Amino acid sequence: MSNLGPGRPRLEQRSRRAETPRAEILDAAGELFTTKGYANTSTRAVADAVGIRQASLYHHFSSKDDILDALLAETIAGPVEFAQRLADETVAAAVRLYALALFDLGQLRTARWNLGALYLLPELRTERFEAFRRRRDELREHYERLAGESLSAASLSDEARVLPFRMVETMIGIRSDAGTAPADLDQVIADGIARVVGEAGDLTALRAEATALLARLT
Amino acid sequence: MSNLGPGRPRLEQRSRRAETPRAEILDAAGELFTTKGYANTSTRAVADAVGIRQASLYHHFSSKDDILDALLAETIAGPVEFAQRLADETVAAAVRLYALALFDLGQLRTARWNLGALYLLPELRTERFEAFRRRRDELREHYERLAGESLSAASLSDEARVLPFRMVETMIGIRSDAGTAPADLDQVIADGIARVVGEAGDLTALRAEATALLARLT
Repeated sequence: MSNLGPGRPRLEQRSRRAETPRAEILDAAGELFTTKGYANTSTRAVADAVGIRQASLYHHFSSKDDILDALLAETIAGPVEFAQRLADETVAAAVRLYALALFDLGQLRTARWNLGALYLLPELRTERFEAFRRRRDELREHYERLAGESLSAASLSDEARVLPFRMVETMIGIRSDAGTAPADLDQVIADGIARVVGEAGDLTALRAEATALLARLT
Repeated sequence: MSNLGPGRPRLEQRSRRAETPRAEILDAAGELFTTKGYANTSTRAVADAVGIRQASLYHHFSSKDDILDALLAETIAGPVEFAQRLADETVAAAVRLYALALFDLGQLRTARWNLGALYLLPELRTERFEAFRRRRDELREHYERLAGESLSAASLSDEARVLPFRMVETMIGIRSDAGTAPADLDQVIADGIARVVGEAGDLTALRAEATALLARLT
């Protein structure tokens, strides 16, 4: 707070609960980008919300795009890493797919800000965000591979392999519309994914195996 | 073009193919909002893209929000009306749900601009767009009712009733990521919805009934 000059009111009074200045900036930006909009938010507004000078913000991020890129990267890093860990497992693809969905859904539902709502920004289609797009494609490919294997094991054509990744991301729209999403939605969506890849019967065993796998790998 | 003053270049050279000035404004706004972003687009930029004066634009719309509201209303009006027509039909709920999904998916896929990408704008959570949100809720409830009936007919619990509406909207993200979406995606998503509401076997008959119903009602 000692950096807070006169005429520069702190917009957010409550603590940001973050451990480093960088994390505080990301938290403030996450709030402003998702509640006011990306284009409507200046780096000055982010600095004000943290209670630091704009010059201090530029010590951590050289532009607003850099802040957005860091926020977006955070939304993908966890599930990509988890998907890579799943690749070494030998349990059925449908179990691995269910576990990946649960992991990803939990993160999308409980993240402090609904950052996935930024995925549709036209800004993300520019060169600046190509690395992010590639990383998100990588996650999408993990889903499609697991979904394709699950469909094949169920003797179904693999057209539906594109759906599970998209179904997980429906959490973003539900959270955006309702302001929040109930914890049991994770299982509802993961069950839906299981149906789509050909699990027609009782899902109790699949859920239990996937939950155990998730617990073991996290 | 006679309204085009000096120093006001027409940004878009090609014809907007619209029949009325109002439709031309909506088309230009749809393009700019989805490619440059809503906050990044001024009514002046929309007027320039149409090749009219800003004052002429205000003859049709009193604000940028009014243009957005009109665009959003267009995305919902068709499927809501179709869902109302379906309510009078006596065929199985799963067939009506499949037909509604096909209708809605076709529109989302082929609309000139991917306007659904605007649904996550923070601006839409303001009072100004309450009527739109209510209208979209109405469409969501049509989906949930048909999905609930389908699940009940399949002797399944109705938790998954929230998924079909969201699965249809995955067309928006797919179009946004890839720039376009293949026509056969309509059936892939509608099939996925059928699986989620408990259609476990061959879907050929369901597809045929739903396609016939769609053709009869449109």
